[in-house]
Amino acid sequence: MTEAEAKGARRRARGAGGGAARRAARSAVSFETARFIERNIPNLEMLSQEALEIIEENAETILEEIGVAFVENPAALERWKQAGADVTGERVRIPRGLARQLCATAPARFTQIARNRARDVEIGGGSLVLAPVYGPPFVRDYQDGRRYATMADFEKLVKLGYMSEWLHHSGGTVCEPTDVPVNKRHFDMLYAHMSLSDKPFMGSVTDPSRARDSIEMAKILFGDAVVDAHCVMTSLININSPLTFDATMMGALEHYAAAGQACIISPFIVGGAMAPVSVMGTLTQVLAEVLAGVAYSQLIRPGAPVIMGAFVTSIDMNSGAPTFGTPEAAQITNGAGQLARRLGLPYRSGGGFTGSKLPDAQAAYESANTLNNALVSGVNFMLHACGWLEGGLVSSPEKFVMDADQLGALHKLAAGIPTDENAQAMDAIREVGPGGHYLGCAHTQANYQTAFWRTKLLDYKPFETWAEEGERSTYELATQRVAKMLGDYQQPALDPAVDEALKDYIARRKAEMPDAFI
Amino acid sequence: MTEAEAKGARRRARGAGGGAARRAARSAVSFETARFIERNIPNLEMLSQEALEIIEENAETILEEIGVAFVENPAALERWKQAGADVTGERVRIPRGLARQLCATAPARFTQIARNRARDVEIGGGSLVLAPVYGPPFVRDYQDGRRYATMADFEKLVKLGYMSEWLHHSGGTVCEPTDVPVNKRHFDMLYAHMSLSDKPFMGSVTDPSRARDSIEMAKILFGDAVVDAHCVMTSLININSPLTFDATMMGALEHYAAAGQACIISPFIVGGAMAPVSVMGTLTQVLAEVLAGVAYSQLIRPGAPVIMGAFVTSIDMNSGAPTFGTPEAAQITNGAGQLARRLGLPYRSGGGFTGSKLPDAQAAYESANTLNNALVSGVNFMLHACGWLEGGLVSSPEKFVMDADQLGALHKLAAGIPTDENAQAMDAIREVGPGGHYLGCAHTQANYQTAFWRTKLLDYKPFETWAEEGERSTYELATQRVAKMLGDYQQPALDPAVDEALKDYIARRKAEMPDAFI
Repeated sequence: MTEAEAKGARRRARGAGGGAARRAARSAVSFETARFIERNIPNLEMLSQEALEIIEENAETILEEIGVAFVENPAALERWKQAGADVTGERVRIPRGLARQLCATAPARFTQIARNRARDVEIGGGSLVLAPVYGPPFVRDYQDGRRYATMADFEKLVKLGYMSEWLHHSGGTVCEPTDVPVNKRHFDMLYAHMSLSDKPFMGSVTDPSRARDSIEMAKILFGDAVVDAHCVMTSLININSPLTFDATMMGALEHYAAAGQACIISPFIVGGAMAPVSVMGTLTQVLAEVLAGVAYSQLIRPGAPVIMGAFVTSIDMNSGAPTFGTPEAAQITNGAGQLARRLGLPYRSGGGFTGSKLPDAQAAYESANTLNNALVSGVNFMLHACGWLEGGLVSSPEKFVMDADQLGALHKLAAGIPTDENAQAMDAIREVGPGGHYLGCAHTQANYQTAFWRTKLLDYKPFETWAEEGERSTYELATQRVAKMLGDYQQPALDPAVDEALKDYIARRKAEMPDAFI
Repeated sequence: MTEAEAKGARRRARGAGGGAARRAARSAVSFETARFIERNIPNLEMLSQEALEIIEENAETILEEIGVAFVENPAALERWKQAGADVTGERVRIPRGLARQLCATAPARFTQIARNRARDVEIGGGSLVLAPVYGPPFVRDYQDGRRYATMADFEKLVKLGYMSEWLHHSGGTVCEPTDVPVNKRHFDMLYAHMSLSDKPFMGSVTDPSRARDSIEMAKILFGDAVVDAHCVMTSLININSPLTFDATMMGALEHYAAAGQACIISPFIVGGAMAPVSVMGTLTQVLAEVLAGVAYSQLIRPGAPVIMGAFVTSIDMNSGAPTFGTPEAAQITNGAGQLARRLGLPYRSGGGFTGSKLPDAQAAYESANTLNNALVSGVNFMLHACGWLEGGLVSSPEKFVMDADQLGALHKLAAGIPTDENAQAMDAIREVGPGGHYLGCAHTQANYQTAFWRTKLLDYKPFETWAEEGERSTYELATQRVAKMLGDYQQPALDPAVDEALKDYIARRKAEMPDAFI
């Protein structure tokens, strides 16, 4: 499709169907989703000022003396030369202070809008935006076990995300739909996020042309003016650690940054393999990589919204497998949060990470370790917040609803402790006195419905009831909850003309290319 | 047994068997246990200075205007009168500031010694001492399911505690041995801790006479002079919330405090039932109760070591069941830690709490939530750190080793982030450079063995291996680990004369009383 054809599609989408759009809106059921988290609790700061300064100093040394590689990307090398870097072959050595100076134009906080504007999210400052699992080629569910993921699985996960009240973001590649050709998947994935949900979403990054398609589809959905003026996608740009920026990811970043769309610029590190085995060493490399990546985004377009990412875990030195929910990962997440705040950038890390094959105790220990740590580390954008299993190889609907339930607890914890007179409850303590109980007192009656976070999944029943009901584990309870949420699901209203225009765009673009499965 | 007979038993224990004791010591295998945690990370402080002052002010108002009840304890009422409180019936109203003033003689940090002095623990300041589950009448294991606990279960759990490298303390009632008469259990439980482990332990509190027996047995084990000069037991004194101090628990406290032995003075609160539904209200009541209880301990013996306890959870307003691992419980744990530090007292809270019936994902989410939160809340003594299931009704060997494995991660996290030159790893980053990998580099070779915390339980194997090995869940893996630890168990050396004297004491005391099962 030419740019002119794409524009035509967008015009038709906006011009037509006003009445139908309004009818669709009236008949739609809206499911409640919590607003993104605004923390009312402090961050935990594990590293001293002095240690942070050492890291910053060493990161500048890396950039200046070792440099970073921008691979197969002559335009990037030229941009760096222009900016004052020393470029030799594909190696870019950045004078001390230059990268940090370039980063200064990136906003400390920005808004990503959703087509349901009540679901806009703000990313940065004290905010925390929760997005689901990203990337697994497999799915596992209680009924069918583990198998390659399909587009049907993808749609199911998007629906679960839409129905999850504590999830603010629809995410991106919630699983890889392996039944769709690699070069055409992004259309179907984006269409699913755009049509099955009205939460904010992510764009494709697996090829620069797919980033361009993502932007085109966003323009059909939101309109050109909206996309020009606002961030409507936050996409995941991984750095090929150590210190390497490949042309695919950088090509995608170039499209998004030029369009004013947000990128998470994220080292992808298994400590001991892609970074040193030490926390300080890894943090130093992370900072150097992020400084170079964010600076590059600002060379493309000063002011382009970016997020400092850190996907970091450690390696099991016995098996070589990546491990999750470990103390070292927690330390790196925490330290990187401190570095991001000093750099004045929004921060992405955390998630319901686990190496477990099953949504069992290992999965929950590891996920809860990560979720709790991410909250107090000041994470602003948490990808993989729910649904992740087996080191990211597997998406699981049951794990999705299990984690998503815990995200409600994070909301409550982040809200801090109310301290007003009602919260002080002195009247209740006076009313009840020594030896009494509070179940029936006026304060309890007035407050009990909102006093405590309530799970929609976990079992609090008496042993006897639980035994009669079949001694169900969390995995089994989650299966029921998945079925209930999918049963309750109703598609959010979408202007039929926009829907049609999206479908047209996809059909035409797909027709332009042969299927590719690598 | 008379005091004279008891003294005789202790004399005989110390006089005899020097050679046998030395032989026993030489032949014993010692299993490594980590030293108690000294935090090298900051605490998280959720409440503002202002909020803390409001709580402190309101707690004084409670003590002054509402007062606390010391039930069926005329001597306590007399002590309070002498100290300047207003006593009416069993109600003790404490003038503003008096309780806090009395608390000032309690030490901010103290040492509890173990018979293996390498296992002494320090409680207070930045320390964290980990002790196992306490109190369940049931046990559950993978093989046999849920059933009433017996003395055999108790011994198994003490052995697991001894073999757990991250557990510093043998605990107390690791389960209720329901096959032993209620009035004689404490002898067998104490003997198990004293003979099957060499870690520090807790005394009996279920009757004042049992506290006395605990002290007598400790004197046989350690010698009179040691018990007179040191804390050798830390025992759990629950307050009957709201605001009530019963004669049983206070009687036990009186014995321990008089003997210079430590007590955890701990409100036992299900929020919404025994305290207001609000966090601030609950914290206010907790502080009032602790102030009264600690002050009372100092009336018994100024300087007696005490720990401010807070066992607080919330109620499920649907079922009335207590809930665990909730955000409100985390907030209360955190706020109570701040209050304890302001009061200058060691702090007890946290544990591997869960309401789940099984050691499944619910159990692990809830436990990990509590463990992580307790660490950053500045907890000094964590009872129930491992082995707890079903809201404290059930001890589980599998859950014990699952939690105990996670305690290793807590150690690593608490140690903070090394920042020395080796940790900075600049040589490694220079050696590897862009696009390389760190697996074989000199820094990795030099550091990999200690770089990362390593689980002894969780599964990091490739999917195919895991599948071939039977797709085992954490529960199943834990069953294997329990069997391995019990198989490896070797009893620590105990002077045979001391052992004999303990057995004599128990036999004589048991013979003095009829069996009682209530």
